[in-house]
Amino acid sequence: MNRLYHYPLSPFSRKVRLALGEKRIEVELVEERYWEQGIEFLRRNPAGQVPVLRMNGRHYCDSQAICEYLDEAVPTPPLFPRDTEGRYEVRRLCAWFDDKFHREVTAKLMGERVFKKLRGGGVPDSAAVKAGSRDIKTHLGYMTFLLESRRWLAGNDMTLADFAAAAQLSCLDYVSDVPWDKYEAVKDWYAKIKSRPAFRSILADQVPGFRPAVHYADLDF
Amino acid sequence: MNRLYHYPLSPFSRKVRLALGEKRIEVELVEERYWEQGIEFLRRNPAGQVPVLRMNGRHYCDSQAICEYLDEAVPTPPLFPRDTEGRYEVRRLCAWFDDKFHREVTAKLMGERVFKKLRGGGVPDSAAVKAGSRDIKTHLGYMTFLLESRRWLAGNDMTLADFAAAAQLSCLDYVSDVPWDKYEAVKDWYAKIKSRPAFRSILADQVPGFRPAVHYADLDF
Repeated sequence: MNRLYHYPLSPFSRKVRLALGEKRIEVELVEERYWEQGIEFLRRNPAGQVPVLRMNGRHYCDSQAICEYLDEAVPTPPLFPRDTEGRYEVRRLCAWFDDKFHREVTAKLMGERVFKKLRGGGVPDSAAVKAGSRDIKTHLGYMTFLLESRRWLAGNDMTLADFAAAAQLSCLDYVSDVPWDKYEAVKDWYAKIKSRPAFRSILADQVPGFRPAVHYADLDF
Repeated sequence: MNRLYHYPLSPFSRKVRLALGEKRIEVELVEERYWEQGIEFLRRNPAGQVPVLRMNGRHYCDSQAICEYLDEAVPTPPLFPRDTEGRYEVRRLCAWFDDKFHREVTAKLMGERVFKKLRGGGVPDSAAVKAGSRDIKTHLGYMTFLLESRRWLAGNDMTLADFAAAAQLSCLDYVSDVPWDKYEAVKDWYAKIKSRPAFRSILADQVPGFRPAVHYADLDF
């Protein structure tokens, strides 16, 4: 049986769960408190991060490397378009959400208010939380700009870029940190992706000590 | 003419310069003080980072997305092996050096002592410098481990993973921050990659206010 070592509120784990779900690759989910850096876990991934995918007896890590691997090993349905320019745009946007959005928004809002509590790291830094709350608006504005001329974020087909973005936003949505009402186009896009079968297990996630927002699992939020 | 907006001591710019050089794609290099975030530069790349490649009238950004694009658009010589497992390993290691090595080592050593000075950001944080000096040894140890069973970092052929690693290390080597002598296998690997024609322009880099280490451009260092 394939296995995914993950953490429910890890956006990178969610990105891989969405890719696996879309490709109908079944995995056993194993929750990993990766910040405790157990020796067994470090053997599976010396980088000490989730997700780690065990597939065909091997371990795979880094969410982008895993998704590129899955797309080459199991090509249908594709996570990338066929043309080189379109593939570039998907990768550019994956990096945008994995790096820039995560650093400017998710790491600040989730990092300060959820992971600090989970790890016992002290009180949230209010300046960081404030910066995250400010910067999410810039990102939602950028997504609105993209969605003005495209059905999905990287073009007219759903791709890995949509999963990378939805992975970040769904974690923030769990703790009710997304001001959807001011960004109708992004809300519509999220409602579309939220209704994919691949999203179901994510909407069922529960983290002790953090109750999900009332609308979190609601498809007509 | 193709053009690369870059900064000499940006490892991500160097990674793309190495990929371009290996593929013999000529570009005009335009130095960009990207942290000043001019409006023209943000139009080329809303993420506000270097490198940005202008090619065939379009702009491309994010070093990994650019290199993947170059490899698809100009397949020879390849930056990745042909097999899926091998391609995964290259991408895993690119993420290792671009994310983990950069965050734990380059951002601490270069960020504190070079970029803070360039940007006028105050005195170096000595705890960060100390952590970077400690963690580079762990990374050089990991590279030694990889090179025990491989000729290059990701396997027996030179790939983008080698460029990602050499891009980080060559920046640190400019300011003499690499304890080569204790890591012979890594030193031998670096001497091999340093002698590639693609490396020449990198060895000629000069940053005002920071003189390169004496051995920096020496192929028999």
